[in-house]
Amino acid sequence: MTLTEQMTQLAQQARTASRALAKLSTAEKNACLKAMAAALEDNQASVRAANQADLNSDAARGLSTAMLDRLKLDEKRINAMARGLREVADLPDPVGRLLDERVRPNGLKLQKVSTPIGVVVIIYEARPNVTADAAALCFKSGNATILRGGKEAIHSNQAIASIMVAAGRAASCNFPEHAIQVVQTPDRDAIKELLSLTQLVDLCMPRGGEGLIRAVTECSKVPVIKHYKGVCHVYVDAAADLAMAESIVLNAKIQRPAVCNAMETLLVDRGIATSFLPQIARKLAAHSVELRADSEALAILRESGQIVSPPLNLKPATEADYFTEYNDYILNVRVVDGVPAAIQHINHYGSAHSDSIVTGNESRARQFLNEVDSAAVYWNASTRFTDGGEFGMGAEIGISTDKIGARGPMGLEELTSYKWLGWGSGQIRT
Amino acid sequence: MTLTEQMTQLAQQARTASRALAKLSTAEKNACLKAMAAALEDNQASVRAANQADLNSDAARGLSTAMLDRLKLDEKRINAMARGLREVADLPDPVGRLLDERVRPNGLKLQKVSTPIGVVVIIYEARPNVTADAAALCFKSGNATILRGGKEAIHSNQAIASIMVAAGRAASCNFPEHAIQVVQTPDRDAIKELLSLTQLVDLCMPRGGEGLIRAVTECSKVPVIKHYKGVCHVYVDAAADLAMAESIVLNAKIQRPAVCNAMETLLVDRGIATSFLPQIARKLAAHSVELRADSEALAILRESGQIVSPPLNLKPATEADYFTEYNDYILNVRVVDGVPAAIQHINHYGSAHSDSIVTGNESRARQFLNEVDSAAVYWNASTRFTDGGEFGMGAEIGISTDKIGARGPMGLEELTSYKWLGWGSGQIRT
Repeated sequence: MTLTEQMTQLAQQARTASRALAKLSTAEKNACLKAMAAALEDNQASVRAANQADLNSDAARGLSTAMLDRLKLDEKRINAMARGLREVADLPDPVGRLLDERVRPNGLKLQKVSTPIGVVVIIYEARPNVTADAAALCFKSGNATILRGGKEAIHSNQAIASIMVAAGRAASCNFPEHAIQVVQTPDRDAIKELLSLTQLVDLCMPRGGEGLIRAVTECSKVPVIKHYKGVCHVYVDAAADLAMAESIVLNAKIQRPAVCNAMETLLVDRGIATSFLPQIARKLAAHSVELRADSEALAILRESGQIVSPPLNLKPATEADYFTEYNDYILNVRVVDGVPAAIQHINHYGSAHSDSIVTGNESRARQFLNEVDSAAVYWNASTRFTDGGEFGMGAEIGISTDKIGARGPMGLEELTSYKWLGWGSGQIRT
Repeated sequence: MTLTEQMTQLAQQARTASRALAKLSTAEKNACLKAMAAALEDNQASVRAANQADLNSDAARGLSTAMLDRLKLDEKRINAMARGLREVADLPDPVGRLLDERVRPNGLKLQKVSTPIGVVVIIYEARPNVTADAAALCFKSGNATILRGGKEAIHSNQAIASIMVAAGRAASCNFPEHAIQVVQTPDRDAIKELLSLTQLVDLCMPRGGEGLIRAVTECSKVPVIKHYKGVCHVYVDAAADLAMAESIVLNAKIQRPAVCNAMETLLVDRGIATSFLPQIARKLAAHSVELRADSEALAILRESGQIVSPPLNLKPATEADYFTEYNDYILNVRVVDGVPAAIQHINHYGSAHSDSIVTGNESRARQFLNEVDSAAVYWNASTRFTDGGEFGMGAEIGISTDKIGARGPMGLEELTSYKWLGWGSGQIRT
């Protein structure tokens, strides 16, 4: 078979499975998920053997220690995957929710009802646990998934998916044979082929680095919901409680620097820059955070820097730095002239992910909340809250930085579409 | 300026305008729209002169009579455009709606609030009135629009947009200078350039024929919501009230055959085919509808056709016919084996637009409503109801055949996105 034929077959199978999947009851879907969880626990050995094959492969040879750690599956992580499946089983079914209802003057009743999307392609990088998480969330929301992980995780991903599919089939819960599929070929053109099948694929969600997202967006003919980088900001206003500001800034930068909702740029109002900047810089230095500062912040910090211990790790910020997601112990610092300048900076350099203002002034806060054009905008809270679990969604497949389809954390409900049902008694249009 | 520079400038201006537009009050937006309506009425002569230039142009020379009629603007149509703008002004503001609210255990209050999408590109064909309608709906929903109509309507479109923009500026309602823009160049590559600007354009909505939609989908790097063809079906079940079935079938086919929610294929359950088909065929023949029938329907109709007057215009249906949107007095007819076969036909050949079942049997109706994967699915009602006005949305920009972002009729609410606001008191993540 050619690559085109392979991908068409895969997508066709997924489309057929999606029709069957849409008909499953909530109980059947949950029974499948629980059987899959048990099977992952029961088949730890085969998952770990597959994972070992990945760790020993050529593809793994070039990986950094951090990447190898992401790739590795131990007992704890396999059990966490199984637990994740059971948690998804326990969440409410997002399909069939009545979103709107109206009776028209002619008596026609219209109901807007949530439905599965259909066939969803998920493209991701190193972590093999995404295979189980993403497949489970899509399955519960009635979508057939086609999964494409990183080539360095291909054995692990296939093992996890096979175990889940075998468990679904064995569980007499009407599991549709091709509800969960993994792209088998490492051929890079597979994605391009798959994402040209507009009649068979309804949505693609790429999760990963800038290069991956860009490549998918470039080639896809099907709708894409991007889970793009997080260049997140905290703006400390002149009217901020500086103790609260310090706590939020430290949390947003340091609590987990490698995630997308961590802060990358600190904006400080000119009115408090000389008091707040040296104070926060000392605390950040104590956590070995490198600061990349604009000229004004640099001057303030250099002056104060003489006396602090540990010494500041201080550099001038470049224009490119303001666009950068470091995912590391690095922070841009810029002095701005009030809320309008902060908003302008964020809307220009940010990635429309998560941004926060710290202030005691409500009208400034409201302006910030209204005008910052990001998925999540906070007043007096850390950017780190942008997360399905923290939002009460139970689980998330990712965080959309797009505005169409879903924005911000995507849980089960965000994995559905809708249709209109018209209940008539012979109505015709006149 | 190169084409790339021109399109980048256009999109950059739209982005800047979208920021200003998002800040306008409802009263300001409505004042702008009403001023635009008055200006269209006051400037009939210049609109008609521009329209005459289009009608006299080389581009118009090849057009059919029907296309020329669509292109033509007379007093009645210009007044209808003005009325449309006032109607949009009278509709509720779709921005700032509270869609969800939750307070987390840590006291963080989360609000999901509707927002404008940002910069929307609308691509359409011959009708110049779309310029006013689409610009008004986007404007009311806080979106900056870039409009690209057919080349045969370029003077009309520019005249309409200029009058609206001039009226907005003059009305002291803080109209942002570039909130409504028309692509000036007839260069076909303009669209490709515009739709590659993922940082500046948030959404593209193509409305028109299959070729247009396909070309846009092929080249766009920004999200697209397709307003694709309507291959709509009515399925007449064995348990149908045949008088009701006749009324719905005639309405769905004949009331306005040229629109997307008109029926293109009639599916008839085998159990009533011999009784219902000759009856409905006679009525359709009286309206000069050509029938393209499968072999079974053909045999039934040929047998009955001997005696009917007027004579049936009957042909065998080809496979390709079932995929075709005729927009004309042509109808496919096929005999199927109950609801499952009807569903299978529709999900395979249809365009996921609007489909209807006529039956007195509730469980069959529910199966049809659940399993037909279309934007609107009706029980005992005409497919012709899929329309923003009929759905009570007040006005529509089109009918989405996509599943991501919006599905079915798109009114003002469907032209919005959302964001999450987090109201804290110093919350940090632990």
